[in-house]
Amino acid sequence: MALIVQKYGGTSVGNAERIAAVATKVIARQKNGDRLVVVLSARAGETDRLLGLSSEICRSPDPRELDVLLATGEQTSIALFCMAVKDMGFKAVSMTGYQAGITTDANFGQARINCIQTQSIIDRLQDGNIVVVAGFQGNDEEGNITTLGRGGSDTTAVALAAALGADVCEIYTDVEGVFTTDPNICSKARKLEKISYEEMLEMASMGAKVLHIRSVEFGMKYNVPIMVLSSFTDAPGTLVTQEDKDMEKVVVSGITYNKNEGRVTITNVPDQPGIAAKVFRPISEANINVDLIVQGGSASPGRADISFTVAKGSYEKTLEILNQVARELGDCKVSGDPGIAKISIIGLGMRSHSGVATKMFDTLSKENINIKMIATSEIKVSCIIDEKYTELAVRVLHDAFELDKNFETQGTVRVQEEKE
Amino acid sequence: MALIVQKYGGTSVGNAERIAAVATKVIARQKNGDRLVVVLSARAGETDRLLGLSSEICRSPDPRELDVLLATGEQTSIALFCMAVKDMGFKAVSMTGYQAGITTDANFGQARINCIQTQSIIDRLQDGNIVVVAGFQGNDEEGNITTLGRGGSDTTAVALAAALGADVCEIYTDVEGVFTTDPNICSKARKLEKISYEEMLEMASMGAKVLHIRSVEFGMKYNVPIMVLSSFTDAPGTLVTQEDKDMEKVVVSGITYNKNEGRVTITNVPDQPGIAAKVFRPISEANINVDLIVQGGSASPGRADISFTVAKGSYEKTLEILNQVARELGDCKVSGDPGIAKISIIGLGMRSHSGVATKMFDTLSKENINIKMIATSEIKVSCIIDEKYTELAVRVLHDAFELDKNFETQGTVRVQEEKE
Repeated sequence: MALIVQKYGGTSVGNAERIAAVATKVIARQKNGDRLVVVLSARAGETDRLLGLSSEICRSPDPRELDVLLATGEQTSIALFCMAVKDMGFKAVSMTGYQAGITTDANFGQARINCIQTQSIIDRLQDGNIVVVAGFQGNDEEGNITTLGRGGSDTTAVALAAALGADVCEIYTDVEGVFTTDPNICSKARKLEKISYEEMLEMASMGAKVLHIRSVEFGMKYNVPIMVLSSFTDAPGTLVTQEDKDMEKVVVSGITYNKNEGRVTITNVPDQPGIAAKVFRPISEANINVDLIVQGGSASPGRADISFTVAKGSYEKTLEILNQVARELGDCKVSGDPGIAKISIIGLGMRSHSGVATKMFDTLSKENINIKMIATSEIKVSCIIDEKYTELAVRVLHDAFELDKNFETQGTVRVQEEKE
Repeated sequence: MALIVQKYGGTSVGNAERIAAVATKVIARQKNGDRLVVVLSARAGETDRLLGLSSEICRSPDPRELDVLLATGEQTSIALFCMAVKDMGFKAVSMTGYQAGITTDANFGQARINCIQTQSIIDRLQDGNIVVVAGFQGNDEEGNITTLGRGGSDTTAVALAAALGADVCEIYTDVEGVFTTDPNICSKARKLEKISYEEMLEMASMGAKVLHIRSVEFGMKYNVPIMVLSSFTDAPGTLVTQEDKDMEKVVVSGITYNKNEGRVTITNVPDQPGIAAKVFRPISEANINVDLIVQGGSASPGRADISFTVAKGSYEKTLEILNQVARELGDCKVSGDPGIAKISIIGLGMRSHSGVATKMFDTLSKENINIKMIATSEIKVSCIIDEKYTELAVRVLHDAFELDKNFETQGTVRVQEEKE
């Protein structure tokens, strides 16, 4: 008798028909002898509807009250879902974040889970209930309602699985699992049977948005096996788990791309201590997140060039700030390129295999794709290239690292994040 | 510095504009030096929307889960309202039924308040907040969300006022107060300055649905002054309070009517002990509420006739059951009349004034209105008449008891319950 935590996203409970389908699926699993905790997101479109109501009231809603408002979305889902299960003749009980004992910090809108008092969930499981918990929400220590921010329901599910010592946390979404790359641009993309937490973290942060990064961190910290699978088919999914020997053999597990960045460069800055801080302080003060940074020697001696990437939405603002910095420093030039893409290869095997980065550069070079910036970590190599080469780069790298061959081939499905 | 509990109904917070108007009103009151607890209903139409969602799932939703669903309606209201207040630069904090410390029994859908732990409200008032509480909801002792049923937000407000020892509980609605009778059918109807709890209870249960009967009971039990007034005008309202000497002088305070009943009669039943039980047991087993009952001698010796009234919706079913009873008893006849109305006169003064009932019968008789049944209580006389005479009866009784003359005359406004 296994203890399973399942999470279903907004599309999976988007209407009465879908709710009935998921209820049937969950009941079948319980009949099979498992104990089930089901975590639900707000129904697709509901969060937008609530945000619309708040925007009618004011432009910048109070964060505490926005959480009170948004939390109703998941509360609606769990009530409707339990009605469906009970109408089918089975026992179910809904629990809001508070009722489920989920305590967070007081950081409204992006709270972090501090602890989970599992006793009331355990009691209700022992009474034979399917326990249905509102994702995305908790209470702070003063009893205020909080929400966990983007990807919050995934985090709720994995955190509950950790706290309950569940056998597995199943994340149901509208894709069949984690793919070697985006099947939309690479027909040879293959669903992975399993992937390590570390690789999944890099995949998630690089743009393969199947699982939110916070839930993967949680899973890794507490060693919760996470199964990503489709709520629309019965196909086997992808298991995110601790690394094992098999994984080490795979040099590259996945390839991701991100077209949503722009590159800016400030050239000929004085090459002296504190210069990086001078450049980046006004950027961070404007709440702009910087991704890759490359600092190198300039054409002039005693001078340096600094390049970095920011989200496309912050590109113009960043140029503006840099131009101001350049005026202050004197003699510097600012340039930029919004038409770039970041291509990353990810794999645990890189740690023990040499020449992986070289192979990537060679492969791109053979297609005459110029590399503008490079960044590496222990299990990842990222290159900034011209945006127009994105699809080509993904396909040739997929071939070069033989990602289609590592395991048996599966059908391809679009990789896209389900709405909260 | 007074402590005021205010309740606003669904129409009063129905859209962003109305929310802003109410927020402005509340803030002005706080600036005036008062401490404010505001109780809100779900926005107009919201409860119907939620019931619609539930009816898509199943016909008879589980009562516990229906409460979880419906409670989101008020939660949405309090969040939006607090956003509005804070956006205007004032301190406000929303509290769900649970957060406000409202504990009820576990009777889902029509829970009764057992106790209110007021400390967290008091703390937040002391911090200078306008405290905004979700009406209509609480938690039972096991932490389940409950709702109070029809009129629940009025009950929340009066109960909070009682628990907090508030100076007054103001119920804002879309009418200006309590009227001597329905201004729609009697142009001389007059708004009352004040009325006793006892009279208000009779008025409420007789169909003048300004205040829900449960909230009046609560107010009477804990002696909470309740002010009924309009959220759309600044006109003074009606104070519902303990009886005083002035009130005793008023023989009749109000006249109500109810067209929603039908009368049934079973004649020639054996006049023996237990016969009433034999007639009424199957009626109550069918969950039909009986209002007036008159039992009298029949034309035949040793036989009796029993007449009673039921809601129009139960009329056909009641006839069916009575016919079955008649067959079992033998020799009885069943007849009925769905076209009746109940006219009631209500007033504390009846206790000390004789001849009030006689004056009512005389007045109706002068208009050739036949009285089919009569029922009396200490402060009320009700007559069943032909439905077609309803408006005429109300007007002649209003004149006969000089209801337009007791206090100064006010403008007339339609008397109608605001939607929860």
